[in-house]
Amino acid sequence: MKSSFRLLIFCFALFLTGINAYSQTYSGKQKHIDQILENIGLFSRYYMEGDVQSLVNAYTDDGKIFPGNLPIIEGMSGLEEYWTIPEGVKIVHHKIKPEEIKVIKKYAYDYGYYEGATLSADGKKSTWQGKYVIVWKKVGKDWKIYLDIWNRVKNPNDE
Amino acid sequence: MKSSFRLLIFCFALFLTGINAYSQTYSGKQKHIDQILENIGLFSRYYMEGDVQSLVNAYTDDGKIFPGNLPIIEGMSGLEEYWTIPEGVKIVHHKIKPEEIKVIKKYAYDYGYYEGATLSADGKKSTWQGKYVIVWKKVGKDWKIYLDIWNRVKNPNDE
Repeated sequence: MKSSFRLLIFCFALFLTGINAYSQTYSGKQKHIDQILENIGLFSRYYMEGDVQSLVNAYTDDGKIFPGNLPIIEGMSGLEEYWTIPEGVKIVHHKIKPEEIKVIKKYAYDYGYYEGATLSADGKKSTWQGKYVIVWKKVGKDWKIYLDIWNRVKNPNDE
Repeated sequence: MKSSFRLLIFCFALFLTGINAYSQTYSGKQKHIDQILENIGLFSRYYMEGDVQSLVNAYTDDGKIFPGNLPIIEGMSGLEEYWTIPEGVKIVHHKIKPEEIKVIKKYAYDYGYYEGATLSADGKKSTWQGKYVIVWKKVGKDWKIYLDIWNRVKNPNDE
């Protein structure tokens, strides 16, 4: 009896750990959350396909990106230049993993982790991961990225 | 006549440059904007004074920071550890320069640039600057930081 109780506690702890590892908090009307989640998936797809026009179109007209080491970049041509993948390079993996999305009127904040893999022109594969905060803005019935900032999380295998 | 017209054009261009260099867009009730601006100033003061308790208290209980290379840090003890300045080191300058603050119900987003200077234990001074996005949350009558992410802008003198 005692050992089966212990087993139950163990399973419950395992269950809680599982919940914690994948905890995602989405707050807002389901249709808005669904649209934002769809756009998050599309962003990764466009990036892997090198579809710069669609990537730039994921942002509002006054959308801003905050890449490491550079000043804030704003405007179509700036975004286009930044997101253009160099000749011969391929983004073979990209995934955005939101931890929380909260819709507040016509805005939403969204934060979480991302991961990706690059195949360089000389055939070398590198993986990278980071964290991000996005401020979304509702444009018509769609949701677009207004602020997009991120930075890396060190790869534990890097050292 | 011609040269005074040229002077007028020159002054007008100078005027526009001045506006552009200090353009700040604040949207929301003045009392909320004022409180957030005051808290932004206090944050820099606490950091320069090494007042970790007040720094941590600038965040909501579930406030999160996104420092470079590290995972997202959440919770009092994590924030306290991160913001504690090492023995002998001094933050001799810190300034946050918001470009836009927008209050949306009980939340606000805020983005801009920051700059600072560190005096290391061996007396060397280093300057640094970056950009940030903050999501503020209204807690009672005060505003606290819920999400705080930043990354550097390269110093033009670094190369």
